[in-house]
This record gives sequence, C-alpha cells and structure tokens, in this order.
Amino acid sequence: MPADDRRYMAAAIALSGRGRGLSTPNPNVGCLIVQDGRVVGRGWTQKGGRPHAEAQALEQAMDRARGATAYVTLEPCFHLSPRGPRCADLMARAGVSRVVIALRDPDPRTDGQGAAWLRDRGVAVDMGLMAQEAAAAMAGFVLRQTRGRPHVTLKLGLSLDGRIALANGSSRWITGPEARAHAHMERARHDAILVGGGTLRADAPRLDVRLPGLADRSPRRLLLTRGDAPADWERIGSPEEIAALERVDHLLVEGGAETAAAFLRADLVDRLLLYRAPILVGSGLAGVGDIGLEDLADAHGRWRLRDSRMLGVDRLEVYEAIRSA
Amino acid sequence: MPADDRRYMAAAIALSGRGRGLSTPNPNVGCLIVQDGRVVGRGWTQKGGRPHAEAQALEQAMDRARGATAYVTLEPCFHLSPRGPRCADLMARAGVSRVVIALRDPDPRTDGQGAAWLRDRGVAVDMGLMAQEAAAAMAGFVLRQTRGRPHVTLKLGLSLDGRIALANGSSRWITGPEARAHAHMERARHDAILVGGGTLRADAPRLDVRLPGLADRSPRRLLLTRGDAPADWERIGSPEEIAALERVDHLLVEGGAETAAAFLRADLVDRLLLYRAPILVGSGLAGVGDIGLEDLADAHGRWRLRDSRMLGVDRLEVYEAIRSA
Repeated sequence: MPADDRRYMAAAIALSGRGRGLSTPNPNVGCLIVQDGRVVGRGWTQKGGRPHAEAQALEQAMDRARGATAYVTLEPCFHLSPRGPRCADLMARAGVSRVVIALRDPDPRTDGQGAAWLRDRGVAVDMGLMAQEAAAAMAGFVLRQTRGRPHVTLKLGLSLDGRIALANGSSRWITGPEARAHAHMERARHDAILVGGGTLRADAPRLDVRLPGLADRSPRRLLLTRGDAPADWERIGSPEEIAALERVDHLLVEGGAETAAAFLRADLVDRLLLYRAPILVGSGLAGVGDIGLEDLADAHGRWRLRDSRMLGVDRLEVYEAIRSA
Repeated sequence: MPADDRRYMAAAIALSGRGRGLSTPNPNVGCLIVQDGRVVGRGWTQKGGRPHAEAQALEQAMDRARGATAYVTLEPCFHLSPRGPRCADLMARAGVSRVVIALRDPDPRTDGQGAAWLRDRGVAVDMGLMAQEAAAAMAGFVLRQTRGRPHVTLKLGLSLDGRIALANGSSRWITGPEARAHAHMERARHDAILVGGGTLRADAPRLDVRLPGLADRSPRRLLLTRGDAPADWERIGSPEEIAALERVDHLLVEGGAETAAAFLRADLVDRLLLYRAPILVGSGLAGVGDIGLEDLADAHGRWRLRDSRMLGVDRLEVYEAIRSA
C-alpha cells in the first residue's frame, strides 16, 4: 500500500539520521523490515561504516525476514568488500520478498546492480520512493558522489540585528540554553567542525558535544588558517581543501565572520543554521565578512527556508542552498 | 454570554485599527452595536478625531440601538467639547441597554465618569474586557496618557546576516514586493515617519504610502538632525523631543542605523518591525549603531515576539518592548 510504504520509508529515513556524523566512510543508510504490518527489524549504518543498516536490520529480524518487505534509504550494496557481506545478496538469502529503495546508489560499483541482483532472485524491487528526502538525510554521501566534497553547514548564533558578539568579542551568551543544546546536538551529526584562526585565538572553543550520553560523539576539529594548527586540530589552508578530507561527509563551519565569508565566496555552503536570539546588540561583530557581493539582485534566490522553530526564546531557522542541478 | 462578548469586543478592537494614524488628537476607538445577535452599527474614530466611534456606530444603528449592547474599546467620553457630543450621554439617550467597555479612559476629564453616567441612567456597564488587547490597539493614546509621549515603532529591513544595505549604501532591494507593500501599509497606520539626516541625504526617501487607495494616508515626515530640515519636513533635534510633537500618537522610525541607535539608547522604542529577506549580504551596513551595550546579559529579556509571518519569501517579525510597569 503506497501510504504504508511512505510511512515505513519515512521511518527508515529517520533511522538513517542516527548514523549521520558516524558512518563514514560509508553512507548513513537506514533500514526497516516489516512483516505483516509489524516492524521486525531496524538498522542504521554503524560507527565507521559497519555493519551496514541492512545487515543490522536482518540480524534483528532473524527468520521473520522471510517473506517480509525491507525499506532501505539507499540501494543495497553489491560491491565486494573485505569489510563485510554484500547487502543485496544478504537480503536475497534471507528470503525478503520485496525491497523498497529510496535512492539508487550512485557509486559505480553498485549503481543498479544491487536492485538487478535482487530482481534476478525473484525479489520485487521498487526504487525511487522519497528519493529526495533520503538524499537530504544522506546529503554528505550524495555530495561526495556528485561533487566530490563534503556537505557543509554554516552555523551562526545571531542577535536580531545580526551580531555574533559585542565589539570586544564577547559572545557569551547571545542565545539561550535550549539553542546551545541544539547546536551541540548538531555537532554530533557532523563528522568534523571547522573554525578560523581568529575564532580559535579569541574564543579557544572546545567544539565538543556537551550533552549527556553524547560526549563520545564529539567530532574532529579543523582549523582554517594560513599558519599551523595546535595539537588535536587538523589544518586546511582554504575552503576548497575540504574535498581532500578523508572520512568527512558532513562538515559544520562555526565561524568566525571571515571563515564564513570564505566558504560563502567559494560557494561551499549547503545549509545555514541560524540561531536567533530576541536581543539587539548594536555595534558589534557581524556574522559574515565580505562575500564579494556587488549587486543586491545577485543575493536573491539562493536560500530556501527548510525549517523554523522556537528553541526557548530563540528561533532556529534552517536554510538550504538553491543550486541549479 | 462571555464568549460572544469576547468575539464582539475583538471585532470592535479590529475596527479601532482603521483609525490608527488618522484619529489624533483623539484616540482611535472602535465601537460595535449588537441587537439580538445582529450587528446594527459599527464605528471608529474618524480622521482628525470626529465623529467619535460611538457617534458613528449609533448613527448607523438608528432606533435599532434601543435595547442593544454596545462594545466599545475605550470608556465613552464624558468631557464637554465644542467639537462634538459626549458619547456617554449619546448612548444613554439612544436607549442602549448595556455597554461593554475594554479600557477605562485614563483622561481625567472622563476616568470613570462616563461609566458612572451610564449606570446612573440604568444602563448595565461591564468594564475591563480585553483591556490589554484594546490598549495595544490604542498604544499611542495610552502612552500619551501614561508617559506623555507617542508610541514608537522601529522598522528594519534586513538580510539574514543583519545588513540593511551594501557597503556602498545600496538597499534596493533587500526585501521583496510583499514585504514592501506591508511596510507601506504600516506607514498608513502611523501619524508620522522619522528618518535621520544621513538616510535623507543617502536615499532621499519619499516616505509616502504607495498603495492603491491609500495615497492620502501618507503620514507627516520628520527628520532627526542637528541641521535644518528641507521643506515639507519637520525637524527634531533629539529622540526625546517626540514628546512635544502635537497630534502624533504613533511614530514610525525608519532608520538609519544611528537614528535607530539614538532611539534605542533613549529607551524610546516600543515595537520592532523586522522584515527579513532570505539573503546573505556579507560586509555592508548594519541596521543598528552603537546602543551603548557593554554586557550581553543586559540585552536579554527586553523584547517579546508578538507576531511572525511570511510575506512572500520574507519573514515579518514583530517584537514589543518588555517594560516593568
């Protein structure tokens, strides 16, 4: 039933979110196995990429997978790896009778072959359901495949008049505890966090995840600088160098203004995360430096509001970049 | 019935909005007359303050006012004026059997005497229903009575990163046509608009209402400057001088950054009207100059979100100042 299919796929997409920021070098896939209207297996790609979501879900389902329908956010892999089994094969062996796939795997080692393998073994396959939503949930993986670089989120914590700090650099606090907790949760959904040299010197940020139970989700720390990076930090010299970072599919840029501007000038920001506090600061530090804009007309049509909600007295707004293909 | 009372009073408050920006020197009162569940009269204070809302509604109701209930946002006036009748007396003569009043008139020439006059003539009077909402709708009148100055709205048209213009001063356009039309409608709801000398020189704003049918609602133009004002402009030398302006209950401050800061420093902004476009500008002009903030903690708890809605791709946010008493 199409309505049920959407409901189960939405659940699989939600499961995929649990592996975001953890699953590299593999995509953060989600999988749900349903037998006679009962969920018998749930899985998401685990830390470091194994087990895959399908393997985990099948292990949970055991022999209840026979005759069941599997919902998976990405086409089950078909490429041989020393690190684990081929999921397309696993599913066929487990006797799954139908596989609903959101996104065809753009990796040339699979790219339709997983689905073909299943069909050849008499498994019904539907591909394309909620592909857009699944692509958004695995945005880093998709950008790696299509543009050869990680997905980049720029975070700004702003006053109503667009300030991120007083003129003396003080930024504690613009936003309230709910917004700060949300920002920490966002850190856990990213493989790495980046700041600029100025922010490191001014704020000495720890960039860790200070939420109960999530301390071990603190991502890698990157520094955009012409100079050297301190111990425990990795250095890049320009925004473009993020393409060469290994095992970084989702990157969070936390500032400051010059770093934000450098990524925007390079058109390397895919998502804006704005935490806006109901305060006025007046003269102070701006969130974004010179992005080379010479005509206001060029600024329009580049950002689409995807989410907006209150976090305590602050408002979170999420924008995504509008790009032609 | 209390539920109906609230519904009718809300309608009277909505009617009062029609006179906002027009009714000075009188408050922009709204009045609804209801006979057996049917609205038989509607009124709002007309341009220049006469006729009063009650007189207009009674004239519309004619003899259907007998035995009816009148909903009025402010206590009917009792003071004698050469410009028109006393509304409390008008109502009693018309045979209204019940008067529901939102706000007691703080003007010492009435201040309870209108209600007493009605009760003495056998009219049932309920006072205080939706007083807060009515006070907000007649904010300028209330502030005139309580603080001896007009109600001040500060308008800002901002990018997501808090810019009101490019570094070269270009601000056409930050916001889209829907937001700009809304801003023109807001002009019509104010008695006067104010800008600073820098904005006048840079933008030569007309500050008129460019909406079909509302051109004659263009408010008076004020200039905050140490120098002289051009023809058709009135001059004030400091924000505090707004108290002396005659026939200005609602003042709209449209910028620029130094003017906004001057009013904020003087704690003379009651309402923020933020039109936010989904664009990033980077280095450019900020909306608010130095407001003398030295500690971020002092910035919190001063603004409460009252309204938020989309206007095309832009978002309008309305904040009101939180003041202790």
